[in-house]
Amino acid sequence: MIIVPEKEIGALLGRKESYEAIEQVFAAMASGNAYNFPVVREAIGHADALYGFKGGFDQAGMTLGLKAGGYWPNNLETHGLINHQSTVFLFDPDTGRVKAVVGGNLLTALRTAAASSVSINYLARKDAKVIGMVGAGHQAKFQLRAALEQRNFEKVIGWNLHPEMLPNLEEVAAEAGLPFEAVELSGMTEADVIITITSSFAPTLMSDHVSDGTHIACMGTDTIGKQEVGVDLIARASVFADEIAQSITLGECQHAIANGSKAEADIRQVGEVINSTHQGRTSDDEVTLFDGTGVGLQDLAVASAVVDLAVEQGIAIKVDF
Amino acid sequence: MIIVPEKEIGALLGRKESYEAIEQVFAAMASGNAYNFPVVREAIGHADALYGFKGGFDQAGMTLGLKAGGYWPNNLETHGLINHQSTVFLFDPDTGRVKAVVGGNLLTALRTAAASSVSINYLARKDAKVIGMVGAGHQAKFQLRAALEQRNFEKVIGWNLHPEMLPNLEEVAAEAGLPFEAVELSGMTEADVIITITSSFAPTLMSDHVSDGTHIACMGTDTIGKQEVGVDLIARASVFADEIAQSITLGECQHAIANGSKAEADIRQVGEVINSTHQGRTSDDEVTLFDGTGVGLQDLAVASAVVDLAVEQGIAIKVDF
Repeated sequence: MIIVPEKEIGALLGRKESYEAIEQVFAAMASGNAYNFPVVREAIGHADALYGFKGGFDQAGMTLGLKAGGYWPNNLETHGLINHQSTVFLFDPDTGRVKAVVGGNLLTALRTAAASSVSINYLARKDAKVIGMVGAGHQAKFQLRAALEQRNFEKVIGWNLHPEMLPNLEEVAAEAGLPFEAVELSGMTEADVIITITSSFAPTLMSDHVSDGTHIACMGTDTIGKQEVGVDLIARASVFADEIAQSITLGECQHAIANGSKAEADIRQVGEVINSTHQGRTSDDEVTLFDGTGVGLQDLAVASAVVDLAVEQGIAIKVDF
Repeated sequence: MIIVPEKEIGALLGRKESYEAIEQVFAAMASGNAYNFPVVREAIGHADALYGFKGGFDQAGMTLGLKAGGYWPNNLETHGLINHQSTVFLFDPDTGRVKAVVGGNLLTALRTAAASSVSINYLARKDAKVIGMVGAGHQAKFQLRAALEQRNFEKVIGWNLHPEMLPNLEEVAAEAGLPFEAVELSGMTEADVIITITSSFAPTLMSDHVSDGTHIACMGTDTIGKQEVGVDLIARASVFADEIAQSITLGECQHAIANGSKAEADIRQVGEVINSTHQGRTSDDEVTLFDGTGVGLQDLAVASAVVDLAVEQGIAIKVDF
């Protein structure tokens, strides 16, 4: 059994490797070679925690296992630990024996950032110049760093419910040598690409905040009840999802599906675009929208990449199990 | 993170510790302090494998986690490994951090044996003298060893579809200094306690093979479609289960529930008898039956006991995770 502790992940897995792992697994999902298992998610009645398992099997990448963990809202205050805690367990698909245990916290941030980055690469206009961020928390920095590598962006604009967090975005823009501007939501019409990364339960970005030709990656909605964008925007956009089943039940599309303004049949897997079985964007005026709900196979994909790198670099801890 | 490899389990966990762990967790389930999560079980489409997760949380024992693994039918032939492969992962309920990784193969055998043993202790007549085994495979030896400690048995009788396996039972009887006799199913009327431990998909032990006053522990049915005993026997018996939800859907009671010969309301949790909130057996003539379907909390309970013992004895492998 191979162990890769949380503290080693940062030095092992970069944005390039994360991108490649997520691109490959989205492609495998769309071609029917990889699927996610039913998600278990339980309010355990202790420490206000949500705990559960996201598993799957990627026959193309021969990756089997699960991410286990969840959200402990009092961790930071009570224990000085981050509130999201997760661990990835990989199994040998040939024998069922456990293969690796990998810290899952940074991996979750990297795979989520890679997902919006993949969507931008395949769906945004090639000449996109302005990227807009709705949300400026810890995860927003990951999303922005990964996104900036996909186009020759010239400017970052951002909005956050709590404006005092906007320096997070300015910092990442400065790393890339780009100017940053705080805007009202109405100012998002300037953006060619928009990433929403909030934990909102009410729509924030509405259709009239978005210009024709924009690509939007909605990355914050992963639970029944959450919502980042107006159903009017979902209705207007060509929608692509990591997994359609999650998109329509607990992802950003749940509300538009529920009120009939979007049909499930009109949502495509982003992997179809990667596989060239769907053309993706059809014109410079089209609004495209990626619903990134987050699936277990993403966690397995980046964990598997980390294990390979850790073994190559002699960092993997090996235990005779 | 603490690691207890499969090879260490045998020396660490005895039948006494297994019994205590299972008794406690059945009690916690019945008092509402412990519950199992929905089970994930997938035919992954590779190596004919069934793979999945059984998780739960025991607030009384502060045990949180899951068993992951499954059934790889070609393992023995192809890889020289046992076909059932599983691993238990424990988490800290206060923080969500992974706490331990424990080999789950022997643990599964021990916790299954402990479950029928608990049922015998709480439901069989005190004066039981003859124990009957239906099934004589690898797991039957575990069941019989644990059962023999619960009463002053004087004789073991056994039946198996393939009689050439009966020496398995004779061996365990001899360890305990008891005579063994191979019988026809009709000969099971001599038994005061019967354990069924087969993987049958058709009823084997029927009501007329069972005398009044007998306790039967049905341990082989854990899947939709399996069946060890006739619905006539279920209808006749006072039925107790590890978990009622599993008993009626994938346990031994699934068929009697489906054809209406048993009502869900007539099935009780064995933990109620442990907690003395149900009296259990009411007369020496009553037929009692335990439906042991196997729940994730059992795996967590024995794994938690193993971790404590491994730490005490300095055998636990500690990894800075």
